[in-house]
Amino acid sequence: MGLFISIEGIDGSGKSSIKEGILNYLRDYNPVGVREPGGTLISERIRALLLDVKSVGITSKTEAFLYASSRSQLVDEVIKPALDEGKIVVADRYIDSTLAYQGYGRGLDLKFLEELNMLCTGGIKPDLTLLLDVDPEVSWHRKKGEKFDRLEQEGIAFQKKVREGYLCLAEREPDRIKVISADRKFSDVLEDALTWVKHLLAGM
Amino acid sequence: MGLFISIEGIDGSGKSSIKEGILNYLRDYNPVGVREPGGTLISERIRALLLDVKSVGITSKTEAFLYASSRSQLVDEVIKPALDEGKIVVADRYIDSTLAYQGYGRGLDLKFLEELNMLCTGGIKPDLTLLLDVDPEVSWHRKKGEKFDRLEQEGIAFQKKVREGYLCLAEREPDRIKVISADRKFSDVLEDALTWVKHLLAGM
Repeated sequence: MGLFISIEGIDGSGKSSIKEGILNYLRDYNPVGVREPGGTLISERIRALLLDVKSVGITSKTEAFLYASSRSQLVDEVIKPALDEGKIVVADRYIDSTLAYQGYGRGLDLKFLEELNMLCTGGIKPDLTLLLDVDPEVSWHRKKGEKFDRLEQEGIAFQKKVREGYLCLAEREPDRIKVISADRKFSDVLEDALTWVKHLLAGM
Repeated sequence: MGLFISIEGIDGSGKSSIKEGILNYLRDYNPVGVREPGGTLISERIRALLLDVKSVGITSKTEAFLYASSRSQLVDEVIKPALDEGKIVVADRYIDSTLAYQGYGRGLDLKFLEELNMLCTGGIKPDLTLLLDVDPEVSWHRKKGEKFDRLEQEGIAFQKKVREGYLCLAEREPDRIKVISADRKFSDVLEDALTWVKHLLAGM
C-alpha cells in the first residue's frame, strides 16, 4: 500500500499551490495528484454540472450525492489503483470537504454524510490530511476580481461555518488532520506542510 | 399522505405507455407523473450524462451514485411535496431499478444499494409497484430499428439478468410488487395494471 495525503481548507486557502509544492518535493516518488470534484473524465463532467451557475435549485443533498458520484469514480479509477501499486497520492479535497461543506456549512446530518463517504470510498481514508486554515475574509480578498462560480457566490458567512467545521473535524481526528495556519506567506505554509509529509514518509 | 405508485421493468417492457394509461385513468385526482432518471432540471442533466454514449469508463458504482443523485433531487423537489399534499404520484422507475440493474445486472452488493436507496429517498417507498414482466428477446425486438443508447447497447444477456433480479425482488416483497405479464397487447396489460390501482384506491 502507498501513502495517501489530502489537502483541505476553504476556498482560497491556497490548496492547489501547496499541492503543487508537495508534488514537486515528492517527485522522486512519482506521486499522483488529484483534485475533487474532478480528476477523471466522468468526474470532470460532474464537476462542471456542480459548478455551473445554472444549477440553481439543486438541493444540498443532491449536491452531496454528486460529490459522492465523482469521488466514487476517482477512488476506483485513480486513487485505489495508485495506492495498490505503492504510490503516493496527493488529493486537493476529499472526504472532509463533504463533512465541512455539506455538513457544517449546509446543515446536512453528519451521520448521513459519513455513511455516504463510507459508501463512495469503500473506507479508503487519507493517512495524512493537511488543513490549510485561513480567515475567510482574507481568502475572499485573495479571490477578489476573479469571476465567482456558484459555490463562491454564497459568501463569507458560509465560508466561516465551513472553517469552523473543518476545525471541529481536526479536533476529532488529531492524529490524521494537521492544522496549518495559511494566512502566511507561501514558503512558510509549504515548510509546515512538508514537515508533516516528511514525518509521514519516515514512518513508511 | 398521498399514494405512490411506481412502474418497473426492463427496457422496452412498455412502462411509459402504461404510466400514461394510469395517469389518464386517474385524471380526476390530478396525479403527478415522473420518470427516472430525470423529472427535474438537475435530474435531466444527470440523465443526459448517464445516457451519453461518451460516458464509457464509468464504473457501476459511480452509475449507482448518479442515479441516487438524480433520485434525491426528484424526491425532495417533486415526490415528497406531492405526497405531502395528498396527491397520487406515478413514477416510471424508482428504487427497484437500482437493485435490478446495478445489483442483479451489474453485480454490485445489494446491501450497499439498499443503503444508497435509503439515503437518497429518506425511506420513501412506493405503496404499489407494478412490474411489467417481458421476455428480453421480445422487448429487444420492439426496440429494433431505434438508435440504442449506451445502456441499451449492452444487450439481451444483461436484460435477462435484470429481469431475473426484478422477479427476485417481487418474491421478496409480494405485498408491494405486483408482477404483470407484459408480453400481451396493451389493453390487457393496462387492464391488469388498473385492477391493482383500483385495489390501492379502495384502501385509501
